[in-house]
Amino acid sequence: MIGITAGASVMYSAMAGMGYAGTSDYTGPIKLEGDPKGTSVLVLGAGLAGMTAAYELRKAGYKVQILEYREKAGGRCWTLRGGDVYTELGGFKQEVKFAEGNYLNPGPWRIPSDHYAVLDYCKRFGVKLQPFIQINYNAFVHNTEAFEGKPQRFKEIQADYRGQIAELLAKAVDQKKLDELVTDEDAALLVESLKKYGVLDDKLEYVKSAATSGYRGWKVDPGGGTQSAGEPSDIISLADILKGRLWKDLITGESIDHQAAIFQPVGGMDMIAQAFEKEVKDLITYNAKVTKIEGSDSGVTATWVDANGGTEEKTASADYCICTIPFSVLGQIENNFGAEMSAAIDDVYYASSIKVGLEFKRRFWEQDDHIYGGISYTNTPITLLSYPSTDFFSDGPGVLLGAYSWGAASYQFNAVPAEERIEKALEFGSQIHPQYRDEFSNGVAVAWHRVPWTLGCYGEWRDMEGNYANACKMDQRTLMAGEHISHLPAWQEGAILSALNAIERLHAHVTGA
Amino acid sequence: MIGITAGASVMYSAMAGMGYAGTSDYTGPIKLEGDPKGTSVLVLGAGLAGMTAAYELRKAGYKVQILEYREKAGGRCWTLRGGDVYTELGGFKQEVKFAEGNYLNPGPWRIPSDHYAVLDYCKRFGVKLQPFIQINYNAFVHNTEAFEGKPQRFKEIQADYRGQIAELLAKAVDQKKLDELVTDEDAALLVESLKKYGVLDDKLEYVKSAATSGYRGWKVDPGGGTQSAGEPSDIISLADILKGRLWKDLITGESIDHQAAIFQPVGGMDMIAQAFEKEVKDLITYNAKVTKIEGSDSGVTATWVDANGGTEEKTASADYCICTIPFSVLGQIENNFGAEMSAAIDDVYYASSIKVGLEFKRRFWEQDDHIYGGISYTNTPITLLSYPSTDFFSDGPGVLLGAYSWGAASYQFNAVPAEERIEKALEFGSQIHPQYRDEFSNGVAVAWHRVPWTLGCYGEWRDMEGNYANACKMDQRTLMAGEHISHLPAWQEGAILSALNAIERLHAHVTGA
Repeated sequence: MIGITAGASVMYSAMAGMGYAGTSDYTGPIKLEGDPKGTSVLVLGAGLAGMTAAYELRKAGYKVQILEYREKAGGRCWTLRGGDVYTELGGFKQEVKFAEGNYLNPGPWRIPSDHYAVLDYCKRFGVKLQPFIQINYNAFVHNTEAFEGKPQRFKEIQADYRGQIAELLAKAVDQKKLDELVTDEDAALLVESLKKYGVLDDKLEYVKSAATSGYRGWKVDPGGGTQSAGEPSDIISLADILKGRLWKDLITGESIDHQAAIFQPVGGMDMIAQAFEKEVKDLITYNAKVTKIEGSDSGVTATWVDANGGTEEKTASADYCICTIPFSVLGQIENNFGAEMSAAIDDVYYASSIKVGLEFKRRFWEQDDHIYGGISYTNTPITLLSYPSTDFFSDGPGVLLGAYSWGAASYQFNAVPAEERIEKALEFGSQIHPQYRDEFSNGVAVAWHRVPWTLGCYGEWRDMEGNYANACKMDQRTLMAGEHISHLPAWQEGAILSALNAIERLHAHVTGA
Repeated sequence: MIGITAGASVMYSAMAGMGYAGTSDYTGPIKLEGDPKGTSVLVLGAGLAGMTAAYELRKAGYKVQILEYREKAGGRCWTLRGGDVYTELGGFKQEVKFAEGNYLNPGPWRIPSDHYAVLDYCKRFGVKLQPFIQINYNAFVHNTEAFEGKPQRFKEIQADYRGQIAELLAKAVDQKKLDELVTDEDAALLVESLKKYGVLDDKLEYVKSAATSGYRGWKVDPGGGTQSAGEPSDIISLADILKGRLWKDLITGESIDHQAAIFQPVGGMDMIAQAFEKEVKDLITYNAKVTKIEGSDSGVTATWVDANGGTEEKTASADYCICTIPFSVLGQIENNFGAEMSAAIDDVYYASSIKVGLEFKRRFWEQDDHIYGGISYTNTPITLLSYPSTDFFSDGPGVLLGAYSWGAASYQFNAVPAEERIEKALEFGSQIHPQYRDEFSNGVAVAWHRVPWTLGCYGEWRDMEGNYANACKMDQRTLMAGEHISHLPAWQEGAILSALNAIERLHAHVTGA
């Protein structure tokens, strides 16, 4: 009725009010109204959180400066390319040898389409985005303990699992075994829907046929002229799929943060870092290793030394501080935070995670296996393989994400030098792609516990209920920000939303709003 | 064992032999060995089938010429852009007013990643491809008879349907109702897998929770700092989903020819036509309307007139003919084909299909609804809406595929002038996107039954078993080719495979191989 009587835009607003249109905590550029009257803010860390805070605060009239430990901005928004040199904790040094145009994003590598803040800053700062292929039905699922260790195509396991559970349920309903669970009214429709959803035949069975091959793939593809009309493929029994545990990753790519459409910056994730840096470069002091943070009721002073080994202490002071230093690092910096904040800092531990980028002489996954982007899953310690969503069909060398693991699977990578991590990635990856050894060119391996500026991948709370709220409070004149101060940990969106929330509260404090 | 003893490449070959690696009827560029000794071939039609045949035959040493009805090559591989003028049967003339860079592909618009022949020609001829977003979890499913006509997000219906059927089956198995259908050994694993697959809680229930919101979306998204930790969204009951029939399109995007990754040419589908045309342009006579085909045991002569209304009859003769004229048109051309071929020609009818391209002043589907590419499905006669997989996040005007229907749904579009088709597309589309009327700029509508050079969308056999094999036979010196002479009807892959198969047989006839 609304639509008919009052026109489309009223109708649209009404629908949005009903929760029908997209909702998000981020609803567009932040508006900090009211004069900060020369208030100064010291931002610690030039990652996305720090740069977001600095950019918006300056825009609102604040005097801002940023201290950054590294020689460049971005933090975990980081891309390694040929010619880059990376030295990790423990002194292991890697020189990246990737060909021109190839890269590895050791940190974030995808931008979900519901991460509205990241997308909006990309748009405002001119960062070009391209689709990231998350799910590829032609990629593999692999379990060393199943199918004699042979990887299976995702599409086959996906169609066969869905078909056979649909068959079981449809038969059970049809045989009236579920009368207590399903009303008579629903039963007929449920069976009809399962027939469609599971690609079942008229006997409610999921069988080898042209119909099921239309989802799981053919044994012989349909051709032209006098070629085959298509030879249906055998299905894999539910028992084998269950035993092989290949159902484990069937919906991994369908979580809200991985659903298609999902994006990546053209040229590498740090195109975002570079775009932010361009906006706030004049505010950043690089190579500044903070050694002490002292707050008071009226301001904050940070002491720092040259990160490249200087001993001369310098200080930076401001009326307020936005501290985006990861708690893993912050806990080792002398400070006078209150007991609640100190407890919060101690409560957060940093997840272990590794990524290995492997460059191969040619894109055999495309040329031999017809896999264009997407992810293969395995129970080996590399956890997954991801195929590049760039330069499809090109002839040159390509970089695979040859390992991305976390938790226990990643520990054995952390403990060894980079070349051994690469060797492990080759060893396990070869079980999925036997072409590995012939085609390998070079690689780079990042173990996040050894990354000097984070000492881990992302913050995890031991007792979030007890400490998270305290970490959000202003401690004298300091507010914390970063992915660890968000409900989207590990995501760039969390870092940005956290920063926006912190400066909103800072601004309210300043203006008394 | 093979892998361990004989090295990676042997292992790979062995796996390919087991059907593990990708198989296709197309295994790479065709090789026509043996000297055709000056044999000439007349190709009728410069669509993809005709141009493939011409290109490969000339390469193999044949003398080739092509007669083409239109002023340009490509046939159904066709793109409409601003400035194009299209006159359909019945005289309706449309001048396309799309902004620079925008387009509609009235015919094929996607290239599945298992269409190896199309992909290979794109690579060889330098056609750039980009990902096509087929499934978008944030797009809509819509039924005028359900949910008070309000469109629902695909992700909600998808997660809720899957979750609730998994719950039913898991409970049934857990309550031992399915003992006749499931072995004890499988039962425990099946329940475990359904818990994961359906996102069920420990009671095997699919309920409103952070876990299910992680797939279907949140009521309030998780934020940063002191913002919400996320408010779970209500689930839609299985009964409502069943009644609303919104399960109908849950797996449409997962068929073998739509599975991710799937591609489109950068700039429009006819970039493929243009690339082929560049290779064979010198062989083509344009605006040649064939009026008669006369075959004999030693050759074929086609009579033609100027398609723009000339009456002067000209002839083209050759030792052989590859005829790619759609049977819908061929049946109206005077010929001396044998009884079997004539029966085959009569057996094929051409599917009705319409496409409407709508240009809007801004990309409201991205800006308001956060839908980037992909497809919304509806039970209205437009059948679906597809959002462009190009120029994401741009500010300029964008073109939606505002209707793509076939069969009965398309009939009412065929019958009316283009402006009325556009009006219908606006009327139905407004039910999904209320912004339509405010944002509409211009449109173009193609009803395939009115396309002069095909008189329909693609060939369908009434009695394939009785006639297809005859249509593949050489009739005197003519071989048929095109999507209708393939087991991949309507697809460009079918057209190309058909042509390759035809010229292989032609070449065998010539060389006596």
